[in-house]
Amino acid sequence: MCEANAYLRQDGKEEIFMEMVDKVIPEADGIVLEDIFGRRKVIKARIAELALVDHRIILEQDDGQA
Amino acid sequence: MCEANAYLRQDGKEEIFMEMVDKVIPEADGIVLEDIFGRRKVIKARIAELALVDHRIILEQDDGQA
Repeated sequence: MCEANAYLRQDGKEEIFMEMVDKVIPEADGIVLEDIFGRRKVIKARIAELALVDHRIILEQDDGQA
Repeated sequence: MCEANAYLRQDGKEEIFMEMVDKVIPEADGIVLEDIFGRRKVIKARIAELALVDHRIILEQDDGQA
């Protein structure tokens, strides 16, 4: 299985936000994350980086900039 | 290996844009994609959807909307 873990990067530190993420869908009011069990979380953030071989999704909090 | 294939979705159709993508980095002037061999492509697009278990990255051409 090629799910990834989603981390929230703030002030140079990364904290785990959600594990075993399958789907990532950017929407108008945030990013929808869905794990392999179908559980969903929404976060007002943007994708900073994906490193799929390392199973990492890095998110950064949306600070209102374009 | 958990790389994915990147597809460009246009008019409801999906065309392969890059295979074996490892890293995806949204930047000011587009999305940088890097495959497992370190080869890079840049595309003026946005991430429409990730489906990691299916190894799929769906991109949509940036049409100037926010």
